Amino acid sequence: MSDIDVLISEVGPRDGLQSIQTIMPTDAKKAWIQAEADAGVTEIEVGSFVPPKLLPQLADTAEVVSYARTLPGLIVAVLVPNFKGAENAVKAGAHKITLPLSVSETHSQANLKKTHAQVLDEVRKIVELLDTLPADQRPAFEGGLSTAFGCTLEGVVPEAKVVDLARQLIELGCDEVGLSDTTGYANPSQVRRLIKLIWAEVGQDKLTGVHLHNTRGLGLANALAALDEGITTLDSSLGGLGGCPFAPGASGNIVTEDLAFMLDAMGLRTGIDMDKLLLVREIVKAAVPSEEMYGFTPDAGLPKGYGTGGWGIAA
Amino acid sequence: MSDIDVLISEVGPRDGLQSIQTIMPTDAKKAWIQAEADAGVTEIEVGSFVPPKLLPQLADTAEVVSYARTLPGLIVAVLVPNFKGAENAVKAGAHKITLPLSVSETHSQANLKKTHAQVLDEVRKIVELLDTLPADQRPAFEGGLSTAFGCTLEGVVPEAKVVDLARQLIELGCDEVGLSDTTGYANPSQVRRLIKLIWAEVGQDKLTGVHLHNTRGLGLANALAALDEGITTLDSSLGGLGGCPFAPGASGNIVTEDLAFMLDAMGLRTGIDMDKLLLVREIVKAAVPSEEMYGFTPDAGLPKGYGTGGWGIAA
Repeated sequence: MSDIDVLISEVGPRDGLQSIQTIMPTDAKKAWIQAEADAGVTEIEVGSFVPPKLLPQLADTAEVVSYARTLPGLIVAVLVPNFKGAENAVKAGAHKITLPLSVSETHSQANLKKTHAQVLDEVRKIVELLDTLPADQRPAFEGGLSTAFGCTLEGVVPEAKVVDLARQLIELGCDEVGLSDTTGYANPSQVRRLIKLIWAEVGQDKLTGVHLHNTRGLGLANALAALDEGITTLDSSLGGLGGCPFAPGASGNIVTEDLAFMLDAMGLRTGIDMDKLLLVREIVKAAVPSEEMYGFTPDAGLPKGYGTGGWGIAA
Repeated sequence: MSDIDVLISEVGPRDGLQSIQTIMPTDAKKAWIQAEADAGVTEIEVGSFVPPKLLPQLADTAEVVSYARTLPGLIVAVLVPNFKGAENAVKAGAHKITLPLSVSETHSQANLKKTHAQVLDEVRKIVELLDTLPADQRPAFEGGLSTAFGCTLEGVVPEAKVVDLARQLIELGCDEVGLSDTTGYANPSQVRRLIKLIWAEVGQDKLTGVHLHNTRGLGLANALAALDEGITTLDSSLGGLGGCPFAPGASGNIVTEDLAFMLDAMGLRTGIDMDKLLLVREIVKAAVPSEEMYGFTPDAGLPKGYGTGGWGIAA
């Protein structure tokens, strides 16, 4: 990681594809992942080990993981909803697994049909499984704190509850926690405050990434706030694929192209080639032509003279 | 200003309306301005004193200024392209006039058909005019530094040039300069750097406001960067009216509703009532139904439980 300042973790093949009805062919997923890795993206969440009946869009996750592992230098991440998913992720060879724990228990019961105690029990079993593995086969294990900034069902989510669950996840053996603005409720002050509170509880090395949505247009401002604090990993989705069910015309996840442009323009190293990244859209568009793609930078294009000497630099 | 932390300066009736073909009836403009002032917006750029042949959409600016002056507590701002415009603005009774000076001289010649020397000469004449007025009739005079973050014609705009023109505008007698990202090229690092450079040259009290566009999706992130530095006035346009000619589906100016939501959610006082502000859109929509309105927060709605005790506050 020493050659980049900020890691953009692409979640489109999981978060984007699970939100659309169209099922993207496995070959198209592979082409997408390969092209994006080739553009310099070094971590991609390629799928989710959920029952195919629930998310047929991601039924080929094991095959996609196998393929993605062949791409040199790529960290292959997956989502798992429970112990069984983690078992499958380990079998497939994922480098990183994330289990989402919704801080709003109402949301947890509505989405995963599990109480906090039940989710934490899955975490415990997953850690036991991981502990049986040789170090070089053990995936990194993140506990994702969903609805950390508010919940569409409960409304306010108390920050003390987020911090307490972060502590429990780390105590149970998660390598890290992640902060997720699942509902697009976050604002920059809240982002800063919550990062500081969690760091104070579990240590700065246990929270390095945030997952932000752009539901109310604040996605990149929240990303900036997180960066200012010292967060080094930001999730985003190419073309904002999947959109936002609550806001027609709006992406759900922040858009990879816009995020990458912001960081690159700020002089932060992401390892990503902007021109190549913008071309990856064409692969996704061609594979799911009926789905809308989002992003301001792709529409407007890069600024005139961008990337040449002196762009944005004091003269 | 002591009862608010950040001043949102609405520029829709000028910047928004000048960018659309439809001419909004004068009564609708008045209703819009009244409703937005009633929602708590305390500064509105209501028009521009340009020749009606060039911008028939703003031909009624004098009448709109007269009306807006009757609204208690409202700062009535206008744009003027030259000395003649300033004369008319003074006659109409505007509280604040802004003359844009494009830092890119190519852009200046393309848009205003004037070199820097010619624009600065207009500034000199305007200051002479203002100096003849009694203090209580003298409008505030801002020199707006357009294309300060880059130009669609020239590309890179050297920061030294922005700083030098800021100095000249203040030396000629402008009360303030403003920083405008006319082209939507700005990034947060550049915003911070340029504010600091200008402050170092002319003093912090001579630059309090920035005008940002959302062309590449970075509008609110740039606003946050400016706020972090200590900028206290942010321009925005209701519903992002006028759009962005270079990015279909994107607003040009940052959207007032999204900006107001961000600030409000951060606990910064803007004086604006969010519910009332969101209703102002209906007036604009009804008056120019063929024009697209933008904004994420209006589409998604305010978060559940927003504004009630404890929202976004640590518990």
